[in-house]
Amino acid sequence: MERIPILKMGSFLLVTIQVDMHDQLALALQDDLTSRVVSDRATGVLIDISALDIVDSFIGRMLGNIAGMARILDAETIVVGMRPSVAITLVELGLSLPGIRTALNVDRGMELLRSARNGETGDDGRQIG
Amino acid sequence: MERIPILKMGSFLLVTIQVDMHDQLALALQDDLTSRVVSDRATGVLIDISALDIVDSFIGRMLGNIAGMARILDAETIVVGMRPSVAITLVELGLSLPGIRTALNVDRGMELLRSARNGETGDDGRQIG
Repeated sequence: MERIPILKMGSFLLVTIQVDMHDQLALALQDDLTSRVVSDRATGVLIDISALDIVDSFIGRMLGNIAGMARILDAETIVVGMRPSVAITLVELGLSLPGIRTALNVDRGMELLRSARNGETGDDGRQIG
Repeated sequence: MERIPILKMGSFLLVTIQVDMHDQLALALQDDLTSRVVSDRATGVLIDISALDIVDSFIGRMLGNIAGMARILDAETIVVGMRPSVAITLVELGLSLPGIRTALNVDRGMELLRSARNGETGDDGRQIG
């Protein structure tokens, strides 16, 4: 299984990272995700990392890259499900995940995405006018 | 990473199977999922198998077990994202996945779960009275 599946939920995309990331897989994920943001006209990307025991600088950079690419394509990225121990290690390592928004879980992440969109475009998430 | 993460989305649970299943992992998933159905009061379980290249009798049985357990706990299970090649192989192997409902993708699966609930309880998914 060489690719991480990307699930479409309404106008959002959900990715669950369950396997150890390596260079090739991270690149494939970035490629797939950016393509899907465009083809599915996604306005938000949720990345669940609840299965990860550790987030090192490599994963941190990958998450930052994805968030940056998605932002250019007009989609917001939210990392959800981080374990408390991961947060502790990140701060201890001096990694603050710049440019990455986080939420407790998928539900909260989706709320955040919806409210971000509503704030931009009006109170019902659609473009005004 | 010895456990498959279970994501809560509203009153549904979502599981994405990305890794090769073996006995222990399947048992752990059944345990976790039934516990979560109860603790999260979930009414539906979505299992995404879009990452699977093959569904053999072992995985078929596991999916059937999960659907059966969830049903007893008053939750509906829907398998989503099956690849066309997997469907072909399943039928050729004589495996028809009895007792398992399927949907094209997560969006359709959630629609199916919502309409199943509405059909049971009234037109807005809540218990009447």
